[in-house]
Amino acid sequence: MKPLRKPSNKPKIVVIGGGTGTFVVLSGLKNESVDITAIISVADSGGSTGRLRDEFGFQPVGDLRQSLAALARDNGETWIRDLLLYRFTNGKELKGHNLGNLILTALQDMAGSTPKALEIAGKIFRLDGHIYPSTLENVQLEVTYSDGTKVTGEHHLDNKLNGGKKIIDIRLKPQAKLYDKAAESIQNADLIIIGPGDLYASILPNIIVSGSKEAFLATQAKIVYIVNLMTRYTQTPNMSAQDHVNVLSHYLGRQPNIVILNNGPISHQILKAYEAEHEYPVADDLNGKYQVIRGDFVSTASVQQRAADAVKRSLLRHDQQELTKAIMELI
Amino acid sequence: MKPLRKPSNKPKIVVIGGGTGTFVVLSGLKNESVDITAIISVADSGGSTGRLRDEFGFQPVGDLRQSLAALARDNGETWIRDLLLYRFTNGKELKGHNLGNLILTALQDMAGSTPKALEIAGKIFRLDGHIYPSTLENVQLEVTYSDGTKVTGEHHLDNKLNGGKKIIDIRLKPQAKLYDKAAESIQNADLIIIGPGDLYASILPNIIVSGSKEAFLATQAKIVYIVNLMTRYTQTPNMSAQDHVNVLSHYLGRQPNIVILNNGPISHQILKAYEAEHEYPVADDLNGKYQVIRGDFVSTASVQQRAADAVKRSLLRHDQQELTKAIMELI
Repeated sequence: MKPLRKPSNKPKIVVIGGGTGTFVVLSGLKNESVDITAIISVADSGGSTGRLRDEFGFQPVGDLRQSLAALARDNGETWIRDLLLYRFTNGKELKGHNLGNLILTALQDMAGSTPKALEIAGKIFRLDGHIYPSTLENVQLEVTYSDGTKVTGEHHLDNKLNGGKKIIDIRLKPQAKLYDKAAESIQNADLIIIGPGDLYASILPNIIVSGSKEAFLATQAKIVYIVNLMTRYTQTPNMSAQDHVNVLSHYLGRQPNIVILNNGPISHQILKAYEAEHEYPVADDLNGKYQVIRGDFVSTASVQQRAADAVKRSLLRHDQQELTKAIMELI
Repeated sequence: MKPLRKPSNKPKIVVIGGGTGTFVVLSGLKNESVDITAIISVADSGGSTGRLRDEFGFQPVGDLRQSLAALARDNGETWIRDLLLYRFTNGKELKGHNLGNLILTALQDMAGSTPKALEIAGKIFRLDGHIYPSTLENVQLEVTYSDGTKVTGEHHLDNKLNGGKKIIDIRLKPQAKLYDKAAESIQNADLIIIGPGDLYASILPNIIVSGSKEAFLATQAKIVYIVNLMTRYTQTPNMSAQDHVNVLSHYLGRQPNIVILNNGPISHQILKAYEAEHEYPVADDLNGKYQVIRGDFVSTASVQQRAADAVKRSLLRHDQQELTKAIMELI
């Protein structure tokens, strides 16, 4: 008889978000001896993902694809990652489409659901860890601004016409429920990492599902919030670090245990580029009842804007190594 | 020090063709203890492949994708195969496109060449064996009929307007050279399997490259030709088995050593469907200086026409198990 497989004794880390911030966190943790679960937003509606949503009617796959690329086991090479992140810059039908999105769309169609598609993708691309959508429902974000205007669709959060306006409410249409396996992971986690990432577009869509507050109250895990490096004109204009924590805590139903904030320098040239977009470093006014970890988390690698990217990419990234080091010290 | 890796002692089988016939041969051999190399046509120009050729200008990937799907190591499951063969039946931009074609196109773009794309695909999808394009050049087929008319483009070989006409010449534009690694595989092979498959659309495009005759004369391998079950109205109308062998031998510069021909029964219903298309079982008049293996090679599995398939699929297939058995007895 084969011995029964022992449950993993590795620390269970749950990473919550979507987009490039979560990609950095997952890419770093993949090389550590930890058990990773990513809970990922399925509310995006722009770019390649938006086109696929419109045409196929499945849950959006853009953020899932990035997490898949981060967690694919490539044996020291990056072909799987590069393949999943490849974007067609040519071809009148394919231009702007992301190959990883097309692969996940095909798998959704073949498998009949997003979790099953991710399970198969995990086998094909040798996933280290699990990726769960935060909900199984097909949702859109509804955003209300302080001037009373409302927009529906996550892509509006990239629209400069909405720049500088304060968001006072965000909800899902239809109101959706936290996916069971995501809830279970939160409850069984040793550490939960929220962010970095667009607060309203990538992070909160995971938190505002029904059942989320209960899961975050029930867990024994420490909750870590990694604050963005810069404000975003179309989502978090002029918001300080404490403002970020306050908004998150409001929807979370509790405060995080730990807040990670950058205090490293950002080059003059990059600051100028952001200033032209009315975006600034997130000011450090943290004053809540949580542990604060400050450090130099600015990546020195430059990120090039890719021609076919429909969505603006941020120039700055958190440094993968420094962030991983800070997280691993919490275990 | 690690011991040097010994060269494989497994019999080296080279499979030449493209399309579903080669898919069946490769799928069967994958489960045997043999060293497989597929040399695959890169002259196709119809359907999803044709659209991608037109828009990206790379070598066509349709036949390569089928071989990749056949040789992917799936650990008893079929997800990789299903993914590579998945065809979008929805979406105004994607309808009719084959996901495996899109993946190979992306890899061609990322890697800069078809062989490098296949090498990477082999790592990602755990290929058992090697797949080589028969040439590195970007070619089109030029077909001349006995009435003096000429067409350029492999997709014309599916056009019923050309039905019933005898083909008297086939060549590549531009004339192209056999890929070095393909030539090397032919020379070092223990057994070479040609077909089954469309004689003019899938098989001869591999044979009519410069350097091919030299490679086939130089090899010590036995050359096996697997004759199709049925004639094709638009390529081989009314051609007998010996007619097939004669055309192949003409371009090959020699006769095959062994010819495999079906003599099993085909159901009345299927015969009727083919008759409506002016297609008939290939008549057995084999009379050359080669060994003939006759047997019941008809698959009883029915093949459904897929809605999004732009290209007509044959209803009949060779039986994978019987064909594999016959091939393995030759080693």
